Amino acid sequence: MTRNELISNIKSKRSFLCIGLDTDPAKIPTHFSNAEDPVFEFNKAIIDATSDLAVAYKPNIAFYEAQGIKGWLSLKKTIEYIPKDCFIIADAKRGDIGNTSNRYAEAFFKEYNCDAITVTPYMGHDSIEPFLKYPGHWAIVLALTSNEGAMDFQFGLSSGQFLYEKVVEKCMEWGSPDNLMFVVGATRAELLGKIRAQAPHHFFLIPGLGAQGGSMQDIIQYALTDEIGVLVNASRSIIYADNSEKFASVARSEAARIRNVMDSALKARGI
Amino acid sequence: MTRNELISNIKSKRSFLCIGLDTDPAKIPTHFSNAEDPVFEFNKAIIDATSDLAVAYKPNIAFYEAQGIKGWLSLKKTIEYIPKDCFIIADAKRGDIGNTSNRYAEAFFKEYNCDAITVTPYMGHDSIEPFLKYPGHWAIVLALTSNEGAMDFQFGLSSGQFLYEKVVEKCMEWGSPDNLMFVVGATRAELLGKIRAQAPHHFFLIPGLGAQGGSMQDIIQYALTDEIGVLVNASRSIIYADNSEKFASVARSEAARIRNVMDSALKARGI
Repeated sequence: MTRNELISNIKSKRSFLCIGLDTDPAKIPTHFSNAEDPVFEFNKAIIDATSDLAVAYKPNIAFYEAQGIKGWLSLKKTIEYIPKDCFIIADAKRGDIGNTSNRYAEAFFKEYNCDAITVTPYMGHDSIEPFLKYPGHWAIVLALTSNEGAMDFQFGLSSGQFLYEKVVEKCMEWGSPDNLMFVVGATRAELLGKIRAQAPHHFFLIPGLGAQGGSMQDIIQYALTDEIGVLVNASRSIIYADNSEKFASVARSEAARIRNVMDSALKARGI
Repeated sequence: MTRNELISNIKSKRSFLCIGLDTDPAKIPTHFSNAEDPVFEFNKAIIDATSDLAVAYKPNIAFYEAQGIKGWLSLKKTIEYIPKDCFIIADAKRGDIGNTSNRYAEAFFKEYNCDAITVTPYMGHDSIEPFLKYPGHWAIVLALTSNEGAMDFQFGLSSGQFLYEKVVEKCMEWGSPDNLMFVVGATRAELLGKIRAQAPHHFFLIPGLGAQGGSMQDIIQYALTDEIGVLVNASRSIIYADNSEKFASVARSEAARIRNVMDSALKARGI
């Protein structure tokens, strides 16, 4: 999906919501336990209940990988089931030397047909560039993450620049707003605006809303632009909002609540 | 496999060679093309030809992931086929927030039964600690990698310390020589000795020999210790040493050549 198509979908859906499919067999409602593929059936129900409200879905690959072969089958069916007007992000945090990153790009862009993949920057340019060579596909590079451990290395200050700032600067040399986004956590709102100033035209994938404590108002204030520029992810707070047979309608209510805030924020900008 | 068991296997095999199984369907000899699972059959032949010479095997997960479901089946069969006296490293470069790294640990330690997994440090302690909670299993954290892109971020100098040095320092607080190794590339030999001084008791997984240009003599001089402390990886230079029907015996010759150098180096230390 190209940048223009993504922006167009956001405008028509009045939403920049990404729903994280961190689907844990131990957490899905018990009435799925007899299904042939409980993970896929759960995802299908979530997608059916939310795909007019969400502009993107983000399967968290670890949850599928932990289930072995059957997890990859659940993932493949889930991706095939997601409607074509939804942007699909493989949250995989991959990255290796060039000839190996090429393989990860093949896996997620060709074999699993995702639009984007999250990528870790530690190994530098040759680990990221292979993901930038597929038109209409995206590398979403970790800049500032939402977790506690982000403090360990991402704030290393070198020549007056934090590591995450250097990552943003260098990656902007390698990719463009058409094939590169950044992960910027919502849990450090005061820094969202600084990174936005550094990368005014790149989309940010913003995790950390809901279960991790980030605020939508901060995101709207500091990261939303006239070109939109944000995909805001919520995973557990939507998909596990309820654990009964009503889980899908409760998930829909929670997604609708967030979408309404997003709609208002877009209107306030005249979008 | 525990540290003592690994050291004992190295001593009895007279080898600290790790063979990287970066198995590319396009590069394996053509006579495998009619096999039901060419990747597994190729790996099986390489393992049969080298398992008395190698102390470890390192499947490069990207190559399997790129093949979709059948790739994971090839990987699973390969891992099950590797003899019990060989240390198995999932070269996966995983790492995410804690609840997600937990899933990657489950995937590679429980579902695929590997001894170790390579881990990227960018997201900090909560991304690494889940891999340290399985006795007899290992996180192998990227410190200084062998690729060109290592220059982009790993040499960021903060408070007089390069990023890769800080990674080593912090990780040594989180793990021990019993559950934590470091990836240290052979292509920057002058730095091997410095990292060895910083982490005298941790094993280093050293890639970059062969196709990438690293030297065994540098490794022996700068990184080998009285506790051994090194696993030296070679992938393409062994598994693709020959492309004819004789590929396995040529791979064996190359592995034996390297093992003989290792045996001499061990003897020179009185091991």
